[in-house]
Amino acid sequence: MRLAELSERSSISTATIKYYLRERLLPPGRRITATQSEYDEDHLRRLRLVRALIQVGRVPVSTAREVVAAVEDDSRDQLSRLGTAVRALPHGPEPDEPGPSTDVARRTAGELLERVGWRFNLELADQSRAFRTLVAAIVALHRLGYACDTAHLLPYARMAAELAVVDLNLVEEYETPAEQVEAAVALAVPYEPALLSLHRPAEAEEANKRFGTGR
Amino acid sequence: MRLAELSERSSISTATIKYYLRERLLPPGRRITATQSEYDEDHLRRLRLVRALIQVGRVPVSTAREVVAAVEDDSRDQLSRLGTAVRALPHGPEPDEPGPSTDVARRTAGELLERVGWRFNLELADQSRAFRTLVAAIVALHRLGYACDTAHLLPYARMAAELAVVDLNLVEEYETPAEQVEAAVALAVPYEPALLSLHRPAEAEEANKRFGTGR
Repeated sequence: MRLAELSERSSISTATIKYYLRERLLPPGRRITATQSEYDEDHLRRLRLVRALIQVGRVPVSTAREVVAAVEDDSRDQLSRLGTAVRALPHGPEPDEPGPSTDVARRTAGELLERVGWRFNLELADQSRAFRTLVAAIVALHRLGYACDTAHLLPYARMAAELAVVDLNLVEEYETPAEQVEAAVALAVPYEPALLSLHRPAEAEEANKRFGTGR
Repeated sequence: MRLAELSERSSISTATIKYYLRERLLPPGRRITATQSEYDEDHLRRLRLVRALIQVGRVPVSTAREVVAAVEDDSRDQLSRLGTAVRALPHGPEPDEPGPSTDVARRTAGELLERVGWRFNLELADQSRAFRTLVAAIVALHRLGYACDTAHLLPYARMAAELAVVDLNLVEEYETPAEQVEAAVALAVPYEPALLSLHRPAEAEEANKRFGTGR
């Protein structure tokens, strides 16, 4: 398809698509004349990813380029491509400074991973942004005076593990490794707010069962 | 305890506590002299809630006052106190304007509630902010070109229902209705980021099982 059709089908203006091409967020089309190129379904898919990253994830262009490079890099194994792509995405806050409260939180996080059996995360520990974000969340709860020990967090960690099975099933529905990496990024960016939006209705339902008419 | 001790035990400055007292976010202490009041454990607990609302939830003072009023209002039944408190908290974006994509999303959301058996939410539907937030999340996914039909969302909704059971168990560990409402607000404000921070480590673990060495 030509640029105009790519723009129409993606609902992204031709100016924005040209910008993405210049920034190497989108691979060049197949040149057919001096001024025209031909684009295909892969371009359409990639545009969807780039838009999710930039518009929803609000990641800087340089970060989006890293994610796209990881999606494309078929010289590496699938786990490392997935890891690079997801690590480049925006994360929650990290613990600000080492100190006694960070040490306690790190121990709680470590114990939690141990009990839920997440050995891959345990091995990475402080090298992993996801782990550091978890430590920061525990520090924040402690500072606010809320109980946040391993026993409190364990049912949530078990639930997160079940959720991850659903996520990865969705990822594995895609055929090519590149599409799978794209799907994993999509789960981390536009899907997370959608999943979070199910939390409150679910709580309302359960509260009605326990405190309301229970219908 | 005196103001100085309340400040020390809560790690909140006396100036901030005085401000919360003036704004009626904290009930007055028991006056013992013309210039001194006595505070108790209830004040300490309420401070924890107010700080979570204002510092973590970033809710305006007027909203925090609404939440606190719902916590205290023992003339109403527990479900309505819980509902008022949680509804006052910050929510995700709402669907911007009615239109065909909002209609499709509303149908998807309704079908989802039907299939997961959330009749309380179904009855409230558009009156509920949680429902409108869910509709907005579905609209956003559609716009980005991601599949987001009932079948895709159903496993997540089921998981949210299980999570809500864990949440409400935690809430019911508290004895008084006021403490229970406070705990429900805490789950919606400082806990949500902590729960979200478990999502990525869980995904990394599951991805390692499927694509990595699987240890």
